[in-house]
Amino acid sequence: MVTPVPGQLRGRVLYWKPGQNKGLNTMAQNNCPLQTINTSVSPTGSLELLSQQEVERLRDLGHGEIYELFRRCALAVLNCDDTSDSAEEVYKRYPDFQIEIVQRTRGIKLKLTGAPACAFVDGKIISGVREHLFAVLRDIVFVSSEFYHPQSAPVSGGFEAIRFDEHSPQTSALIKNLVFHVLRNAGLLQARQLPSLVVCWGGHAISREEYDYSKAVGYQLGLRGLDICTGCGPGAMKGPMKGATIGHAKQRLKNGRYIGISEPGIIAAESPNPIVNHLVVMPDIEKRLEAFVRLGHGIIVFPGGVGTLEEILFLLGTLMDPANQDVYLPLIFTEPASSRGYFEKIDAFLVATLGVQVRQYYQIVTDDPTKVAHIMRDGVNRVARNRRQTRDAYYYNWLLSIPEAMKYPFEVSHDSMAALQLSTRLPAAELAVNLRRVFSGIVAGNVKDHGVRLVREHGPFQIRGEGPVMAAMDALLRDFVADGRMKLLREQYNPCYTMHPL
Amino acid sequence: MVTPVPGQLRGRVLYWKPGQNKGLNTMAQNNCPLQTINTSVSPTGSLELLSQQEVERLRDLGHGEIYELFRRCALAVLNCDDTSDSAEEVYKRYPDFQIEIVQRTRGIKLKLTGAPACAFVDGKIISGVREHLFAVLRDIVFVSSEFYHPQSAPVSGGFEAIRFDEHSPQTSALIKNLVFHVLRNAGLLQARQLPSLVVCWGGHAISREEYDYSKAVGYQLGLRGLDICTGCGPGAMKGPMKGATIGHAKQRLKNGRYIGISEPGIIAAESPNPIVNHLVVMPDIEKRLEAFVRLGHGIIVFPGGVGTLEEILFLLGTLMDPANQDVYLPLIFTEPASSRGYFEKIDAFLVATLGVQVRQYYQIVTDDPTKVAHIMRDGVNRVARNRRQTRDAYYYNWLLSIPEAMKYPFEVSHDSMAALQLSTRLPAAELAVNLRRVFSGIVAGNVKDHGVRLVREHGPFQIRGEGPVMAAMDALLRDFVADGRMKLLREQYNPCYTMHPL
Amino acid sequence: MVTPVPGQLRGRVLYWKPGQNKGLNTMAQNNCPLQTINTSVSPTGSLELLSQQEVERLRDLGHGEIYELFRRCALAVLNCDDTSDSAEEVYKRYPDFQIEIVQRTRGIKLKLTGAPACAFVDGKIISGVREHLFAVLRDIVFVSSEFYHPQSAPVSGGFEAIRFDEHSPQTSALIKNLVFHVLRNAGLLQARQLPSLVVCWGGHAISREEYDYSKAVGYQLGLRGLDICTGCGPGAMKGPMKGATIGHAKQRLKNGRYIGISEPGIIAAESPNPIVNHLVVMPDIEKRLEAFVRLGHGIIVFPGGVGTLEEILFLLGTLMDPANQDVYLPLIFTEPASSRGYFEKIDAFLVATLGVQVRQYYQIVTDDPTKVAHIMRDGVNRVARNRRQTRDAYYYNWLLSIPEAMKYPFEVSHDSMAALQLSTRLPAAELAVNLRRVFSGIVAGNVKDHGVRLVREHGPFQIRGEGPVMAAMDALLRDFVADGRMKLLREQYNPCYTMHPL
Amino acid sequence: MVTPVPGQLRGRVLYWKPGQNKGLNTMAQNNCPLQTINTSVSPTGSLELLSQQEVERLRDLGHGEIYELFRRCALAVLNCDDTSDSAEEVYKRYPDFQIEIVQRTRGIKLKLTGAPACAFVDGKIISGVREHLFAVLRDIVFVSSEFYHPQSAPVSGGFEAIRFDEHSPQTSALIKNLVFHVLRNAGLLQARQLPSLVVCWGGHAISREEYDYSKAVGYQLGLRGLDICTGCGPGAMKGPMKGATIGHAKQRLKNGRYIGISEPGIIAAESPNPIVNHLVVMPDIEKRLEAFVRLGHGIIVFPGGVGTLEEILFLLGTLMDPANQDVYLPLIFTEPASSRGYFEKIDAFLVATLGVQVRQYYQIVTDDPTKVAHIMRDGVNRVARNRRQTRDAYYYNWLLSIPEAMKYPFEVSHDSMAALQLSTRLPAAELAVNLRRVFSGIVAGNVKDHGVRLVREHGPFQIRGEGPVMAAMDALLRDFVADGRMKLLREQYNPCYTMHPL
Repeated sequence: MVTPVPGQLRGRVLYWKPGQNKGLNTMAQNNCPLQTINTSVSPTGSLELLSQQEVERLRDLGHGEIYELFRRCALAVLNCDDTSDSAEEVYKRYPDFQIEIVQRTRGIKLKLTGAPACAFVDGKIISGVREHLFAVLRDIVFVSSEFYHPQSAPVSGGFEAIRFDEHSPQTSALIKNLVFHVLRNAGLLQARQLPSLVVCWGGHAISREEYDYSKAVGYQLGLRGLDICTGCGPGAMKGPMKGATIGHAKQRLKNGRYIGISEPGIIAAESPNPIVNHLVVMPDIEKRLEAFVRLGHGIIVFPGGVGTLEEILFLLGTLMDPANQDVYLPLIFTEPASSRGYFEKIDAFLVATLGVQVRQYYQIVTDDPTKVAHIMRDGVNRVARNRRQTRDAYYYNWLLSIPEAMKYPFEVSHDSMAALQLSTRLPAAELAVNLRRVFSGIVAGNVKDHGVRLVREHGPFQIRGEGPVMAAMDALLRDFVADGRMKLLREQYNPCYTMHPL
Repeated sequence: MVTPVPGQLRGRVLYWKPGQNKGLNTMAQNNCPLQTINTSVSPTGSLELLSQQEVERLRDLGHGEIYELFRRCALAVLNCDDTSDSAEEVYKRYPDFQIEIVQRTRGIKLKLTGAPACAFVDGKIISGVREHLFAVLRDIVFVSSEFYHPQSAPVSGGFEAIRFDEHSPQTSALIKNLVFHVLRNAGLLQARQLPSLVVCWGGHAISREEYDYSKAVGYQLGLRGLDICTGCGPGAMKGPMKGATIGHAKQRLKNGRYIGISEPGIIAAESPNPIVNHLVVMPDIEKRLEAFVRLGHGIIVFPGGVGTLEEILFLLGTLMDPANQDVYLPLIFTEPASSRGYFEKIDAFLVATLGVQVRQYYQIVTDDPTKVAHIMRDGVNRVARNRRQTRDAYYYNWLLSIPEAMKYPFEVSHDSMAALQLSTRLPAAELAVNLRRVFSGIVAGNVKDHGVRLVREHGPFQIRGEGPVMAAMDALLRDFVADGRMKLLREQYNPCYTMHPL
Repeated sequence: MVTPVPGQLRGRVLYWKPGQNKGLNTMAQNNCPLQTINTSVSPTGSLELLSQQEVERLRDLGHGEIYELFRRCALAVLNCDDTSDSAEEVYKRYPDFQIEIVQRTRGIKLKLTGAPACAFVDGKIISGVREHLFAVLRDIVFVSSEFYHPQSAPVSGGFEAIRFDEHSPQTSALIKNLVFHVLRNAGLLQARQLPSLVVCWGGHAISREEYDYSKAVGYQLGLRGLDICTGCGPGAMKGPMKGATIGHAKQRLKNGRYIGISEPGIIAAESPNPIVNHLVVMPDIEKRLEAFVRLGHGIIVFPGGVGTLEEILFLLGTLMDPANQDVYLPLIFTEPASSRGYFEKIDAFLVATLGVQVRQYYQIVTDDPTKVAHIMRDGVNRVARNRRQTRDAYYYNWLLSIPEAMKYPFEVSHDSMAALQLSTRLPAAELAVNLRRVFSGIVAGNVKDHGVRLVREHGPFQIRGEGPVMAAMDALLRDFVADGRMKLLREQYNPCYTMHPL
Repeated sequence: MVTPVPGQLRGRVLYWKPGQNKGLNTMAQNNCPLQTINTSVSPTGSLELLSQQEVERLRDLGHGEIYELFRRCALAVLNCDDTSDSAEEVYKRYPDFQIEIVQRTRGIKLKLTGAPACAFVDGKIISGVREHLFAVLRDIVFVSSEFYHPQSAPVSGGFEAIRFDEHSPQTSALIKNLVFHVLRNAGLLQARQLPSLVVCWGGHAISREEYDYSKAVGYQLGLRGLDICTGCGPGAMKGPMKGATIGHAKQRLKNGRYIGISEPGIIAAESPNPIVNHLVVMPDIEKRLEAFVRLGHGIIVFPGGVGTLEEILFLLGTLMDPANQDVYLPLIFTEPASSRGYFEKIDAFLVATLGVQVRQYYQIVTDDPTKVAHIMRDGVNRVARNRRQTRDAYYYNWLLSIPEAMKYPFEVSHDSMAALQLSTRLPAAELAVNLRRVFSGIVAGNVKDHGVRLVREHGPFQIRGEGPVMAAMDALLRDFVADGRMKLLREQYNPCYTMHPL
C-alpha cells in the first residue's frame, strides 16, 4: 500500500502503459490535454450547512499554513484521470492551480483557478470528484479544528501530529477515539449494518497479472455481498474495487461501498480512483493503519513491496498481542499463479522469526479467487459472531489493542537501529514490532534520502540479533530486490547493514 | 406559547375535557393507569454512534448535576399521553422514575425505572417517544458539552446560561451561531429545500373554537405544502400540526415536518404531542425565540395570553429595527369568529404605542383559514425571493438582526421597572423592547412568586411613561383578565402597578 | 358497512352534525360553497402509460353507456368533503358536472366541467383526490375491458355482472381470480410483506361514542403496526383509519396502508375519506365481500345495522364451511361501554340459530381497545403461521372456500322467501346462507322500494322455519328497530313477514 | 447487431480471446468448469404475484410447444459468463438442462436441472441472472398469452408471428401498440423522465480497438447522464454499457439504465452481459428494430458487418419517409482511428444510392468520443423539445412512421430478387427499403444455408438496377469481405449475383 513515512513521494511502474489500453487512453486524451479551468464549486454533504463562525474559520484557513496542504490534496483529487504517481510531477504540471474559499451568507464556495480540465465535463465538475474535493476539505478542517493544538507549529507535508508528551495508554485511547471521530464525521460508520468490509492491501506498482488477479478476487468478494476498503490509488488498491463493482452490479447490490483511506502525504501520488465512493483523509500513516484494522472485518494482502511487508508486521504484531486473544480478524495472503512463491517466502520469514504459531493468524491461497472469497465470507460471518459475543460494535473494533509501539513512527539512526532487540526469545508481538522497525531502517538505508545519507556518512547500520532472524531478513530483502519489488537509489545492491549474530 | 421565564410552571384550562372525547380518553385510560415500566432503550439517530470518550462523558453526566435536568425532560416526553400541564404534578406522579445511562462497548443504553407505561406498547417503547427521548439527551449533551463553561454553577430549572460578561455584538454573534449549531445538530436544517416553514404561536389554554380554528388553518396550510413549527404542547401549538397532517395526507406529502422547539423549563408542562417529528430543546426562552424567527419563513399568531403578547412584541421589536429593513417575514394575526375582536384590541394597543406604521408588519384575518393560507403561501414565496436577493440561506435567517436587548432576560425589580422608558418618542423598536419588559414585570407582579412577593412587600411597581402608552397597556391587561386569558394568583384583579404619566 | 344490493342508495344519520365541529366545518365552508371548477387533470399511476389502442378504447367509453357510471363515481370522489350520504342529493347538487376523456399523443387527460370546488386547492386538484379519480377510472376500465362480455347489456347502477350461465365451481374459481386481478391491478397486493391488514366492518351511521371507540381501536391497532381496510365512507369505516393514522405516526411507520374497497353503486353515498391511500372499486357487493375476506388477515366488527349483520352471516357461513377447517381468520366483535349489550344480542341470535359451536369463530370484547388490538396482533401472527403451513400466500387467501350461494345475489320474492329452509338440522354453514337470505328479504320488505311494494301488494312474506330460529330473528330485528339501527320507510314497525314454525 | 432473419445462429470472432484477459478469465475458470446445478428459483418482479389461473396457464406452457423456446432462452441467460457465440454449441454443452414450472399455492417456482454452475454463487443464483431468467419468462408469457392466436401453429425458432392476413395500416398500428405493450409490461417505460436513452448499434465481432473505442464513447455518454440501450451480447453491444457504468459511477448516478433488447432466435448466441439491468425479449427482429427506434432518443452506429448495414438502411429508410419530416432523431456514425475510412465507404454508398440529401440524417465522427457525446447530448435535448412541440411522449416515439415494407421479413428467392426496383428515380425511402432487401438476399446467397443452396441450384441472382446503384453495392460488399467483416460459407469470394444495369 504505502510506505510508512508520510510526505515521501515515490515513482512506480505503471501496470497500465499508454497504448496498451486505447479505450481509457482515448478518454484521457480527449478530455485532458493539460487544459485548465477556472470555476466555482458548491459544497456537498456536511459542508453544505456551515455556520458563519465556521465559514470564517475556513476563510482564515485560506490564508494560514494549512492552506498549502489543502491546495495540494485538492489538486490530487482534481487530477483524477492522471496516471502519474509522482506528486511533485503533478504539482509541477499545474503550477498556477489556486483554490480559494469564498464566503457567502449561506455558506461557502470553492473558487478554483487553473484546475485540471479532466475533473470537468462540459465545464461542470464531475460529481464524484466534487465529493472527493469536499471530503478532503472536511477532513482537514475536522482534524485541524477538533483535535490539534491551536498553537501547533507550521504544517509540513502532512497534518501536524498531536503533541502527546508521552506515549501512554491515555494517549493510545485518545488516538483510538480520534480515529473513530474522523471516520464518523466522514459518514463511514453505519449502525446496525452487518459486517461486510474487506480491507485489501498490496503493491500499487504490480504486474498486469497481479492486477487482474486482484480484480478477480474483488469480483468474487462482490458477488458475495462484501465491500472493499483500500488505501486509494492504483494496483492492488484499485483492482479489488473494480472487480467488486461488477460483482455488486450482477447481484443488484446498489449500495456497494468502496472506501478509500488516504493521508495528506500520499494522496497526490495515489489519487483516489473514480470508483471510491467514500474518501477519508487520515492525518498520518499510523492513524491510517489504525483506521484500516478497526474499520475492516477482514484483511486480504496481495503481493507488494516493502511497504506491504511492514503492514503485515504491523498486523501480526497486533494480532499476536496477548491482549487480543479474544479478537478474531480473518487474514488472507493471496497471489496469482504468475506470482507463485511470493507468499511462501513471506511465510518462511515469518515462521523463522515469529515462530510457527504465527501461521494460525493467516491463510495463504494461490490462484483461486473463489476460495479466497469463500474463506473471507465465512471469516466475516465469524467476525459478526465474535463482535456479538464480546459486545463490540460491528462498525468499529473497539476491543482490538494496538501495541503502543505501533502507534508512533520509528526514528531511524545508527543508535536506534543498534538498540533493537531481535531475538526469538522476545514475545512474538514484541519481536514483530522490532522487525517492523529494523525493516523501516533498512528500507531507509536503501532508498530514502535521509537513510542513504546516514549510511554513506557513517557506514552500514550495525544490527545485533540472532543469526537465524538476521538470515531470514537478509534472504527476504534479496528476493525483493531480485523480483524488482524494491526500488533502489543506488545502481547495485550492497547491503546497508552489517549483521552481528548474538 | 410560553411565559418568558424558564422554569416557571403554569396550570392551564384544558380544551379537551375528559368525557368530551371518549375516543382519545379511552386510549389514555386503557393505556395509562399510572402503571410504570422498567426497561432498557437503545438510541436512535446521532446517539447510535458514540465514541468511548463520549460514552464516558455521558455516563459521568449521569452522576452530575445536569442529570436531574435530563431526568425531568425525559419524564416529560415519556409522559406523552398525559393532559396535565403542571410539571410538578407530573413529577409527583412518577416519584420513582429513574433514568440511567448504561455503557456498552458499542455505545449506550438508557435504563428506565418506574417509567410511565403510556410510552410503551406491549412493553416496547413507542418509536416517536424514543425519538423524543434521545432528542432531549442529544440536545442536553450538545449544549452542555459544546457551548457551556465547564466551571458553570449548578443547573437549576434550565441550562445554565452562557456566562457572557457583557452584552456585546460579539456575544450576539455567538448566540446566533450557537442556535444554528443546535438546530443543525438536531437535523433540522436542510440545504436546498425551498422555504416552507410556518411558525404558529398562540395560547396553549384556548377555547375549543379557537383550537378547532387553529386546526382548520393548519389544514389549509398543509394543503398548500407548508410545514408547521410550534413550541410543542397543546392548544395553538397542537391544532395547526394536526390540521396540517390531514392536509399533507390529502396531498400525499409524505415528508411533512412538524417541528417542536421546546426548552428544559417548559417541556414537562408542554410535553411534545405525538405529531411532532422533529423535537429540539433549546437552552432557554431567548434562544428558543431566536430559533423560531431564524428558522421560520412566516409566522401566524393565534389568540393567547400574555405570553403571546410578549412574543408579538419580541417579533415587532425585531422587525421594526432599522437593521432589518431589507428582511421580509410575513406575519399574520388570526382568530375565529367566536374570538372576533381579540386582535382588534391588540392592534389598537400596538398602534397607540408603536405608531400606525406598525401595521405594515402584520395582517389581521378573522375567521378565514383559506385566506390565511393564501397570504402565507404568497408570503413564503416572497421570502424565497428575498433570501435569493440578499443571498441569505433558505434554512436559516442569518441576516435578521435581533436587538441585543431581546437576547437577554429582564430582571424584574422595582428599580428596573421604574427605569424603563415608555415614550413614543423612542424609536419604535426600542419602545417595543421596553414594552415587552414592562409587560414581563406586570405579569410577574400578577402571577409569579417572585413578582407577587415583591409587590406584596414593597407595594406596586412605579411605572413612568407617557399617558397614552400607560392607558393602552392598562386597557389591554384588563381585557385579558376579563376574557380569562390571564390566570391570577390573587382572587381579585387590582393592578400591581401605579402609573406616572410624564 | 353496506346493504348487499348494489345501486341502492340509503340515507344515514350523520355522526358529525354541522356546528358540532367548527374546525372541519370551517374547512368545508371556506372551501366549498357549491362553487364549481372547470379544468384538466393528468393521470397518475398505471394510467400514465397508455397505448394509443387503450386511449382510443377509453375515448370510446366516453360515448358509451359505461360513461354515466364513471361520471357518477368520479363525482363521488370529487365531492370529497361533503357529508351527505345521499347519492341522489350529490348528483342533483352538481347537475352540470361533466367529465371528458381527452386523447393526447402521449396519453389522456380528463377534462372536468362543473366539478365540485372542494376537490381543488387554489385551482389545483388535491393529490389524493386525483389518485381516487384515476383509481375509479382504472378499475372501471380494467373490469369492463378484461372481464366483461363486449356484448353485455346496458349498465344500470353498477357493473354489468359477468354472465355466468350456471353457478358452478368453475364460475367460482373465475370470480376468485377476477377479484385477485382487480386487486393486483390496483397495486394492493404486495409480495413478501408480512400479514398486517385488519378489515373493519360496522355501521356508517353510528353514535359519536361508537365512532370515537372505533377510532380508539384503530389507534391501538396502528400502534402495533397493523393496517386498516374498510369499505370507505364515514362511521366505522373512517374511525379505525383515523385512529391508525395517529398510531402509525407515533410509531414513525411511514407506509401505513388505509385501503378502501368500494363499489359503483355505493361510492357516491360513501365517498372515500381523505385518509384512504388505496382505493379500489369492485364491480359489485359479492366481489367486494370476497375481496375483504381474501385480502384481510383479521376482521373486526363494530356495531352497525342490518348490513353489518348480513356481513357477519356471510363471514360465519364461510368460516363454518367444512372446506375451511384448516383456514384461520381472527374475528372480533367489539363495542364501547355505551353500546354494551349489542353483541350480546347478536351472540344470542347466532347461538340460537347456528349452535353454540359458532362461538369458536369469534370473540366479543367490550370497551377495551387495547385488548382488541392485543388479540388481533396475536391473531394476525397466527395467520402468518397458518399461511406458511398451508403454503398459501400472505397477500391473498387462495385457500378460503366461499360457499357458492354466497357468491350471487338473492332475488327476493314471496316464492323465494317461502322456499328457504330455516332449520337447525341443516349444516350450520348452509343455515347461515339461508339466514342471510331471509334477512335480505325482510330488510327489503322493510326499507326497499321493491320489497315494500311486494309486501304491500301480496301481503307479508310467508316464512317457514323452526320456531326458535324464527323467534331469534324476530327478537333481533325488533331490537334493531328499537335502537334506531334500522331506518324504515314506514312510520310504524309492523313486521313484513309471517312466521310458520314447522 | 443482428442478422435480420430470426432463428439464424451465427459464429463470430471474439474480441476477447482467452488468455488476453487473465482477470475475467480467472473469474470464469474458477466458476464454471461445465459444472451443473439443480435447484429451485423463486420469481421476482411481476411474476411474484400470479393468480391461480395464470399459474395454471404457465404450467400448461411447461408441456406445450412454447416450452422448448423458453428452455433455450433460459439456458442462454444462465450461461452468462460464457464467451461462445454459437447457440448450438451452448445447447450441446448442457444437454440435460431442464426447466420446470412448479405450481405453488402462492405462485410459481422454477425448478432447474443441469443448469450451468456459472449462474450461481455458493449455490444461490446471481440476482441479475435471476432477473434475466424471469424477464425471459415474463416476455414469452406476455407475448404468447396476450397477442397471439390461441390456435396458432407450433412455434419454431421464435415466437409464432401474429397472423396478419394483410400488410395494412391497421396491422401496422397493431404492431406499434404490441411493441408498446411488451415494453411497458417489462417496466421499461417511465413517465415524466426526460429523454436520455441512446441506442448503440454495431458489430458483435469487432477488433479490440473498436471495442475499447465503444467503451470510451459509452464513458463520455455516461458522464453526461445518458443511458444506453443495445441488442445484448458482446462487442459494440457491451462496450458502451461498460463505459457508461464508469461514467455514471463517477457522476454518482445510481439509476443508470442499461437496456438490452433481444429476441428468442438470437439470445443464446448473444446472451445478455451482466451489466444489462433491463432485459426485454421481443418476438422477432422487426419488432425488435421497432422497439429500438421508438424507445431510443438517439442512435449511435459503430462499425459492424452486413447486419449493421441493414440496420442503417432500416433507419434511413424510415427517417427519409416524408411522413417523418417533423420527427427528429439524432444519428451518429463513429469509428476509432484504427478503423478510419469505414464510414467514409458507407457514406459513399449511401450518397451514391439515396442521394446527397441522405447526409442530413447523420453525422460521421472519427476517433473523438467526447465530440460524439457532445453532439448526442445536444441531440437528445433537441428530441425533448421536438416531443413537446409535437405533443409526443418522451418514453415512446408514437409519431414515427415506419414504412410498412420494413415491418415484415423479406422472402429471398430468384423471383423476389429479380423483382426489386433499384433506381435512384424511386423516392429515397422506397429505394432504401429495396436496398435493404437486395442486401438481405445477397447476404443470404453468401452465407445462409437457404440462400447458398438457391444460388448453387439456380445460379446467381439476377439483379436489375441502375448501374451506379449496382456498382456502389458491389464495391461495398467487396470491402466488407476484404476487411473480414463478412463471414463466408465458401472459401473464395465470387459474387452470388449478376447485375443487369438498366
